[in-house]
Amino acid sequence: MTTQADCLALDAADPLAALRDAFALPEGLTYLDGNSLGARPRAATARAQQVIAAEWGLDLIGSWNTAGWYDLPLRLGQMLAPLIGADADEVVVTDSTSVNLFKALAAALHIQQTTPRRIILTERDNFPTDIYIAEGLAQWLDRGYEVRLLDTWEDLPAALDDDVAVVMLTHVNYRTGRMFDMAAVTAQIHAAGALTVWDLAHSAGAVDVQLNAAEADFAVGCTYKYLNGGPGAPAFIWVPQRHQEHFSQPLTGWWAHRQPFAMEPGYRAATGMRRALCGTPPVVSLALVECGLEVFAQTSMAALRKKSLALTDLFIQLVEEYCPGHPLTLVTPRAHAERGSQVSIVHPHGYAVMQALIKHGVIGDYREPHVMRFGFTPLYTSYQDVWQAVMTLRRILDERDYDLDAARGAVT
Amino acid sequence: MTTQADCLALDAADPLAALRDAFALPEGLTYLDGNSLGARPRAATARAQQVIAAEWGLDLIGSWNTAGWYDLPLRLGQMLAPLIGADADEVVVTDSTSVNLFKALAAALHIQQTTPRRIILTERDNFPTDIYIAEGLAQWLDRGYEVRLLDTWEDLPAALDDDVAVVMLTHVNYRTGRMFDMAAVTAQIHAAGALTVWDLAHSAGAVDVQLNAAEADFAVGCTYKYLNGGPGAPAFIWVPQRHQEHFSQPLTGWWAHRQPFAMEPGYRAATGMRRALCGTPPVVSLALVECGLEVFAQTSMAALRKKSLALTDLFIQLVEEYCPGHPLTLVTPRAHAERGSQVSIVHPHGYAVMQALIKHGVIGDYREPHVMRFGFTPLYTSYQDVWQAVMTLRRILDERDYDLDAARGAVT
Repeated sequence: MTTQADCLALDAADPLAALRDAFALPEGLTYLDGNSLGARPRAATARAQQVIAAEWGLDLIGSWNTAGWYDLPLRLGQMLAPLIGADADEVVVTDSTSVNLFKALAAALHIQQTTPRRIILTERDNFPTDIYIAEGLAQWLDRGYEVRLLDTWEDLPAALDDDVAVVMLTHVNYRTGRMFDMAAVTAQIHAAGALTVWDLAHSAGAVDVQLNAAEADFAVGCTYKYLNGGPGAPAFIWVPQRHQEHFSQPLTGWWAHRQPFAMEPGYRAATGMRRALCGTPPVVSLALVECGLEVFAQTSMAALRKKSLALTDLFIQLVEEYCPGHPLTLVTPRAHAERGSQVSIVHPHGYAVMQALIKHGVIGDYREPHVMRFGFTPLYTSYQDVWQAVMTLRRILDERDYDLDAARGAVT
Repeated sequence: MTTQADCLALDAADPLAALRDAFALPEGLTYLDGNSLGARPRAATARAQQVIAAEWGLDLIGSWNTAGWYDLPLRLGQMLAPLIGADADEVVVTDSTSVNLFKALAAALHIQQTTPRRIILTERDNFPTDIYIAEGLAQWLDRGYEVRLLDTWEDLPAALDDDVAVVMLTHVNYRTGRMFDMAAVTAQIHAAGALTVWDLAHSAGAVDVQLNAAEADFAVGCTYKYLNGGPGAPAFIWVPQRHQEHFSQPLTGWWAHRQPFAMEPGYRAATGMRRALCGTPPVVSLALVECGLEVFAQTSMAALRKKSLALTDLFIQLVEEYCPGHPLTLVTPRAHAERGSQVSIVHPHGYAVMQALIKHGVIGDYREPHVMRFGFTPLYTSYQDVWQAVMTLRRILDERDYDLDAARGAVT
């Protein structure tokens, strides 16, 4: 049996252990929900004061130039690019993931408009907002566009017929933690004449994404999960250079204009990634994204991925060693190549068990149906966190210390 | 001639003078650019610390419930509603003005879809992003939709033919400060069978807007100008109760779903104003909007409007008294009913003169062509500010103390 001493030894030997100090984690909490909301970088409070008290408060409107607010969406994109295998001028941070997905899907359909392809293909188990956005776009275009849902991702090859314009997939599934082989799947989709839109919400900062190497077409993602940008922090959109000139989508706000301050009465698209912007971005939330990205500059995605797999391997192993006999089903793949940075376990009373874990200081979360999610953020999750989580889970299960009538919050 | 003593006497008698203390304005600065970026409420720094250090840092994901993040877009909408003559359940704060305008226009076109009306009518002099967004929507719908631009707003009655589906107008023009009679124009548009979308970017918190009394159809607006919500703070959208049930637009993100956490694979629209949300909002920027709105709770739009008119009247009068003989042209209407809360003056060297004003501590801004804009925010602008601005302008003009080669920043 693995022991606590083994876990402490792993922490002692962890070359990334010091990065945890960059985050303000509450004492005594085992936080395994960075896949929902990343922890707070310590730098965020001072950065917010800088932006609010000095830049907004003292320089006021001048800060659009002097504090670099105007270029912030692009500058953050440059910082984020290496984490997802993108070039520096291929990413902007702006709007929400949903809005960016709308832009990316629209741009992909625009490229396909001269073909008869009218299907947006995705998984039924994709994150719901992705499906809803695709539905909204297809319905409004009203020219035969349709969203087709795969019952399981294994059906993808068979579904890639001549009608498919774009395949929209979330790289790492939010519920199961299953990861696609981005390069192989992209090649398969391209061979069938379709384009790819990848949602990296559970990948960026969690696994070693290589968008350009995979020859992907478009991607969007979230900065408030593994990138630790803050609650609801603006999302990102990636458009490779080869698609930028043809990038066309309906949310043509003034920030995407070639000369926004010329105040022309007609839209002319900006060159490069500014074309993927829309309106004025929320500067305070946007600026905090930098605090999260700065921590990544101290390491590499390869090193983080290595630790992430070690953490999830350990969690699976400890659950199997210490919680036998309980009705737990691992739904996250065991194969490294198919696993993101979370472990999802089904228990018939998953919601109640998760509430009990949270009550006792182990913060994971719950997704329908019956899925307990445990997210492992290699920047700050320790091996001792894994130990603590499994020991708490074991006690709760062994003692049946959970409340089947636990009330649900608005956000669960 | 009006004297400085007269201005000081006006300040001494100003019932709203104490509200200035709610804002952190730099010593010695005369800030007349609140129509571009509102000043910082003093409360904003502490509020940011609360949200970042305590809510994000300590309660982490739990804050979606415990700190009320989940309901924040609606709660801010309730606070904002009385400032624009709306009911409490008719407004949400979310996304950018551009994105919200896209939703509002789409919703208006949706209502008109069973008619043959396919024209979005607006002014050529509308704020550019409004026109660009309308263009983007019309082009993408590709079913005969078209944006038609009025050369001058006086052409509106003649342009209201049977093809017009929706008239999109900015209530107070960003460049001239000219204000529409919302009730009269809305009635005219309705009589012609069209719907209205009002952009309140330069109205909300500046003039006494009465959306429901005017029987307007849709409105959007900005919180970072007169509402002092912070740089790029999320915008708002208003949908009156009578249109909420039919409110349909393509940006159907999960926050607009009836049960977002049921994670259903099909979109079902939420009831009420949640339907106008899309993705996860930027919580830190969003939370700061409350600091601005709280100040409004201490007064009324009627009182603010009275002071605003007194400030703009005084500015016009002082310029006429103290800057005769200079090539200045007032482009803001003199009639109170047609004036917002800014005064715009054309000077052949407007850009250079404005740069000189800024250099000497009088912050206004510049809009093509040749327009110097001076915004008056009755919450914090004093009559002495008006005096100071005009005396500085007078000296700069009299001494020709401006640089015709002044370089332009990215944002002007």
